[in-house]
Amino acid sequence: MRRGIATVCLSGTLEEKLAAAAHAGFDGVELFEPDLIGSRLSPREIRLRAAELDLAIDLYQPFRDFEGVQPGRLEGNLRRAEAKFEVMQELGATLMLVCSNVSSDAIDDDALAAEQLHALAGRAAEHGIRIAYEALAWGRHVNEYDHSWRIVRQADHPALGVCLDSFHILSRGTGLDAIDEIPADKLFFLQLADAPHLVMDVLQWSRHYRCFPGQGGFDLAGFTSRVLSAGYAGPLSLEVFNDVFRQADPTRMAVDAKRSLLILEEAMQAPSARRLPPPPDLHGYAFLELAVEPTSVGQTQRLLNAMGLTPAAQHRTKPVTLWRQRDVRVLLNAAAPTPPGVAAIAVESSDPARSSERAEGLLAPVLARQRGPGEADLSAIAAPDGTSVFFCRTDVDERVSAGHWLEDFEALAPGGGPFTGLDRIDHIALAQPFDYFDEAVLFYRSVLGLEPLESLELSAPSGLVRSRAVTNQSGSLRLALNVPLLAHDTAQPAGLQHVAFECADILAVGEQLRARGLVPLAIPENYYEDLAARSDLDPGLLSAMRELGVLYDTDHAGGEFLHLYTQTIGDRLFFELVERRGGYGGYGAANAPVRMAAQRAVAEAGVGAGALSG
Amino acid sequence: MRRGIATVCLSGTLEEKLAAAAHAGFDGVELFEPDLIGSRLSPREIRLRAAELDLAIDLYQPFRDFEGVQPGRLEGNLRRAEAKFEVMQELGATLMLVCSNVSSDAIDDDALAAEQLHALAGRAAEHGIRIAYEALAWGRHVNEYDHSWRIVRQADHPALGVCLDSFHILSRGTGLDAIDEIPADKLFFLQLADAPHLVMDVLQWSRHYRCFPGQGGFDLAGFTSRVLSAGYAGPLSLEVFNDVFRQADPTRMAVDAKRSLLILEEAMQAPSARRLPPPPDLHGYAFLELAVEPTSVGQTQRLLNAMGLTPAAQHRTKPVTLWRQRDVRVLLNAAAPTPPGVAAIAVESSDPARSSERAEGLLAPVLARQRGPGEADLSAIAAPDGTSVFFCRTDVDERVSAGHWLEDFEALAPGGGPFTGLDRIDHIALAQPFDYFDEAVLFYRSVLGLEPLESLELSAPSGLVRSRAVTNQSGSLRLALNVPLLAHDTAQPAGLQHVAFECADILAVGEQLRARGLVPLAIPENYYEDLAARSDLDPGLLSAMRELGVLYDTDHAGGEFLHLYTQTIGDRLFFELVERRGGYGGYGAANAPVRMAAQRAVAEAGVGAGALSG
Repeated sequence: MRRGIATVCLSGTLEEKLAAAAHAGFDGVELFEPDLIGSRLSPREIRLRAAELDLAIDLYQPFRDFEGVQPGRLEGNLRRAEAKFEVMQELGATLMLVCSNVSSDAIDDDALAAEQLHALAGRAAEHGIRIAYEALAWGRHVNEYDHSWRIVRQADHPALGVCLDSFHILSRGTGLDAIDEIPADKLFFLQLADAPHLVMDVLQWSRHYRCFPGQGGFDLAGFTSRVLSAGYAGPLSLEVFNDVFRQADPTRMAVDAKRSLLILEEAMQAPSARRLPPPPDLHGYAFLELAVEPTSVGQTQRLLNAMGLTPAAQHRTKPVTLWRQRDVRVLLNAAAPTPPGVAAIAVESSDPARSSERAEGLLAPVLARQRGPGEADLSAIAAPDGTSVFFCRTDVDERVSAGHWLEDFEALAPGGGPFTGLDRIDHIALAQPFDYFDEAVLFYRSVLGLEPLESLELSAPSGLVRSRAVTNQSGSLRLALNVPLLAHDTAQPAGLQHVAFECADILAVGEQLRARGLVPLAIPENYYEDLAARSDLDPGLLSAMRELGVLYDTDHAGGEFLHLYTQTIGDRLFFELVERRGGYGGYGAANAPVRMAAQRAVAEAGVGAGALSG
Repeated sequence: MRRGIATVCLSGTLEEKLAAAAHAGFDGVELFEPDLIGSRLSPREIRLRAAELDLAIDLYQPFRDFEGVQPGRLEGNLRRAEAKFEVMQELGATLMLVCSNVSSDAIDDDALAAEQLHALAGRAAEHGIRIAYEALAWGRHVNEYDHSWRIVRQADHPALGVCLDSFHILSRGTGLDAIDEIPADKLFFLQLADAPHLVMDVLQWSRHYRCFPGQGGFDLAGFTSRVLSAGYAGPLSLEVFNDVFRQADPTRMAVDAKRSLLILEEAMQAPSARRLPPPPDLHGYAFLELAVEPTSVGQTQRLLNAMGLTPAAQHRTKPVTLWRQRDVRVLLNAAAPTPPGVAAIAVESSDPARSSERAEGLLAPVLARQRGPGEADLSAIAAPDGTSVFFCRTDVDERVSAGHWLEDFEALAPGGGPFTGLDRIDHIALAQPFDYFDEAVLFYRSVLGLEPLESLELSAPSGLVRSRAVTNQSGSLRLALNVPLLAHDTAQPAGLQHVAFECADILAVGEQLRARGLVPLAIPENYYEDLAARSDLDPGLLSAMRELGVLYDTDHAGGEFLHLYTQTIGDRLFFELVERRGGYGGYGAANAPVRMAAQRAVAEAGVGAGALSG
């Protein structure tokens, strides 16, 4: 199955777009006319450049407002088309996209449109060119694909067929049954785009919010399967207009685009996807690695100690200490040049090799590792925000088996501290770079097989934050991805990250941690006044929560969430302690504004360093 | 007339919001409940803080989903309200906003709603509190203000009245006649917000795209006048949810907000606006000042020379040279620490003192000037992007009159170069900071009395650019304001600026400038191929345009625009030469993508320094 991408999906000059598409391994491109017009390369030079890059020019697009015009204007339109046919011949492009007329003076007459398209196809055929007619969702009279097909059928010219575009069809909720009625040899082209469900003018929706398959809310697999069943044999070609993608790095975006087609093909069980191994079962975090600049090491160690983790082992060759409490493992890397942050996450995979193979098959950047002699071969990939992702398998009894990652560590004094009740890492929240949020969601969805939940908007003192969680079926592996809803045009701090530990009884555990010196983030008294007003919580419970800075949320199914935060170290990293009751599956989003306001107040007061009382 | 602002309009902690509102001179605030809940200040402390700042708490908001519930749920809702009444008493707030119920289980029964609101008002009255009931545009059953008024009338309690919100009413296009039917003593509160005309879900529109009066497309003056005529005597209070405003500097935003009310009052001819002098007639640019770092001076001088400007005078005390050609005057300030850019614009005002007075009255930042003995007293204000704006009056015969700005310059050798045909400065295009684009539009609209044209989106290789022109009636003063549609979260270059000169015959003038050494920005051959295909331009004209890099645009009225660009100096500044035919009033936006692609190609090729052939 050939794969294509429209040049409009990507930023940069036409040369940069072509290079990015080729680098990601696309077979062809749709050449978006404004990209040609703005290019210093002649059509012939573009043809050569594409050929050098092994890219076909699958489609020349768009040609507008052609059909359904007053007969007196037909000849002018044909002349306009002839000029483009000449350009296409120099480009070596043989398929032109004609969009349904959007002009207010277009005539609502299928026979007239068919007759004029017939004439166009005749002229095209003389140049060895074919015409793919597409119903725009906002076409003046023709805005459904079955209508465009009726006109094509009526026109009855071998050089005339239809172009189907998933956005134009799925945005209107048009039924898909009529696809089967279109003969395979009239299915000239297929354009794919996903989009989030939005209630807005369809033109604006289309021009600004399209995204790659798997990033939005449309059933692209179902749609594409229908078109393939009908016999379509051309490329799967992405045509996405997205405000963010068109300002982002085109090389990254092209890889993201390609990845979206790979998992679309997998979802359709296409033969082309057979080489991609399915995602192995993932079950929780094997460890996470905090990278901390030397000046923050002491503070981080004191906070880990207050949480009840103890130094258990030292890496044989690196300045990395393993802190743990039972199965909660945190590597502290004290050689980082940056403020404290999550440098790596390691997920427990039932088959680490297969996880890595899948990641590579999905074009995840594989990280070169500095591996000492005899050290475990942990392959890692880079997530879109730069966090390293390891796949590993920590045997239950942690016996020393060949290649086990724990082998790389030398145990420190045995014993360790008391059990303070941290059962597991509940979730990790990572701030994402603004231009690559959709890429990140698709990355975790495809590479790790996690499911994205609904996108939320949280109000912070510095603006709105978009938050989207990705999680596996069992809930044992959860990530929250956060990004400002809008960026500024000045350099911004990297954004907060945090690690949440789950416990069974937050009040008991919180007490214990406080006894160990933990000072939780101070939650405003006003929060508890409001909570008392809007809930039926027992006053004793409320009072205990207030004492410890515990926040509270419920879900529609009656699940409850109690959680507290530590203060922030290094302006970037903090911890959370959570208790989930009754199957609560969220992350306390309702409380995020209060948490962010409290963090801002601490930062304003300049007491950020006081995460510990001792 | 008292003026207020809702805390939700502004970014920061509640303390910061209050300080910003007070600094801008607001009389009161609407306290948005989440701002209270996230605050470390107790209600009593907030009351004190507000009192210190001389701010009233005009409204406590919002209280949700109260009315039209099953009778069994009333008592719980009243208890929830009682808790808030206690908070309000501590705050010293006596008016609570109750929004119409949006819950899916709200009951569609006006009598029930009225009865329950009556009960609420009764409880409120016991605390000296009144209730303002507001129809949200997306209320489940009550979503029109006249409906909310019928319910309030039916409830018939002295402590119950209506809150009118311009967004909820104007977004739905509700007729305004029913406002007159509401007795003055039932008009408890008025919330003002403007918004651009968008076709989208009204809730999303309201939550993300509201703006201050004068920044959107609603007739706020007409609406507000109706409410005042009906006898409303409370504050004009702004309630704006805007993604950009809530991440921007709150002090700036509060000033912007205040400015929006000042011109709203002026538009309504309110008594409070009498002290604001009307905008004097402006007619063109007296001069503009380019600030250039020492290493770019030579290149800038060569480019000015190629354009046909000549050094005419030297400032008596500063390293500033006046370059001119007849009435086109460019000051070259060679002492700037920054890359070349527009540092100041000076507009010809029929009354510079009154222009300054108006600017000050509209809270424009007045710039302190270093004025030498005997130098003209040019008062300047700072535009939102940092450009200085001067008001001056250049007498027609330039005779030396007291305080004339030209007096500060000492003439160089008389004569000057030949007239190359630059008639005037046509427009100046300035890149705006992302967070302050709406502020900039309102600034020029209010302070200079310019009219904003429609906002356009232009496609650049690095993403979409929003462009909005502001111009005076005669077209003698035009500015184009540009901003990326989205920012990145990394530091971005300052953005391009350019100065356009008008001429009567661009082909002749362009030839002449080329003979003087000007190398225009190279426009792709593909542009002319496309232009030939889609227009009926004479081949001779086309060929001449191609030779000189002249671009072409038309408007609906048959006006024509021919223009060419110079190359860019210092990655920031370039010039444009334009010819307007037949009353063309635009800026060649259709050609902006080609221009930006050509500029990117030059930058990529690293030949940006070659603006001149010689």
